[in-house]
Amino acid sequence: MRHIISVEVENKSGVLARIAGLFSARGFNIDSLAVGETEDPTMSRMTIVVRGDDKTLEQVKKQLNKLVDIISVKDFGKKEFIDRELLLFKVSVDRQSKAKAVNYLEKNHAKILHSTSDTLMVEYASEQERVLKLLDGLKDYGIRDMVRTGRIVMAKE
Amino acid sequence: MRHIISVEVENKSGVLARIAGLFSARGFNIDSLAVGETEDPTMSRMTIVVRGDDKTLEQVKKQLNKLVDIISVKDFGKKEFIDRELLLFKVSVDRQSKAKAVNYLEKNHAKILHSTSDTLMVEYASEQERVLKLLDGLKDYGIRDMVRTGRIVMAKE
Repeated sequence: MRHIISVEVENKSGVLARIAGLFSARGFNIDSLAVGETEDPTMSRMTIVVRGDDKTLEQVKKQLNKLVDIISVKDFGKKEFIDRELLLFKVSVDRQSKAKAVNYLEKNHAKILHSTSDTLMVEYASEQERVLKLLDGLKDYGIRDMVRTGRIVMAKE
Repeated sequence: MRHIISVEVENKSGVLARIAGLFSARGFNIDSLAVGETEDPTMSRMTIVVRGDDKTLEQVKKQLNKLVDIISVKDFGKKEFIDRELLLFKVSVDRQSKAKAVNYLEKNHAKILHSTSDTLMVEYASEQERVLKLLDGLKDYGIRDMVRTGRIVMAKE
């Protein structure tokens, strides 16, 4: 099962390495990870998307909670949340296909940052379902140089 | 000096822990980190923002290049690039301040995802300079529960 774990940590050297080590020691592969500053400059917030069995994840979460420098651990697996991810990528086009690709991107509220005769540079931010749908609709053109932030989440409350 | 390093890695358990370990062993603090999938499902792309002296960073980059499972290492320190970051956060408002905050957010193309009498839930994606400017303009209201993806970059060319 896929889990989304949000971890608040002290902004110190070595914390990330210890957390990543905990997951890899248990054989978890991290699908995506986003680490950024928070409203408090001494604190960072990490959003980790992992796949693995629930039991092992419970153990990892317990170990996370024991680490110095960790402020809180939240599992969004079953909670209602808003999720977003940001992507930058290039779409391969030619004289024939360009107008159609531009039209598709604009219809889906993707931003075209730069356009040449054979490439469209695109920015897109949305929820996971829409990201997958947009990329699926572009696969016949060809996608290159894709950079993704990984997902971040916020409780709906 | 602040550097933005883009690392392409094989999508395997343990790679992230080894990379994070390399930086922390040299005392680098990672300002932000974004790890996401790429157009190739066997590969991930990491965007790392670090501060530290250039000489030590050169050593870290050399060591990164020697790691198995690392495909490429790019330093965007001096290159022209497009950078973007995505943020989710809440702005504290009251009956008096709400309309003004909404106006400010809309003027800056920030998306209001949810609104109550005392909170605005906001999504914002932009380049670093504008992110800092937006947050600065909101500091009198108060920002809570901020989650950031960390920056991702793409060469301009």
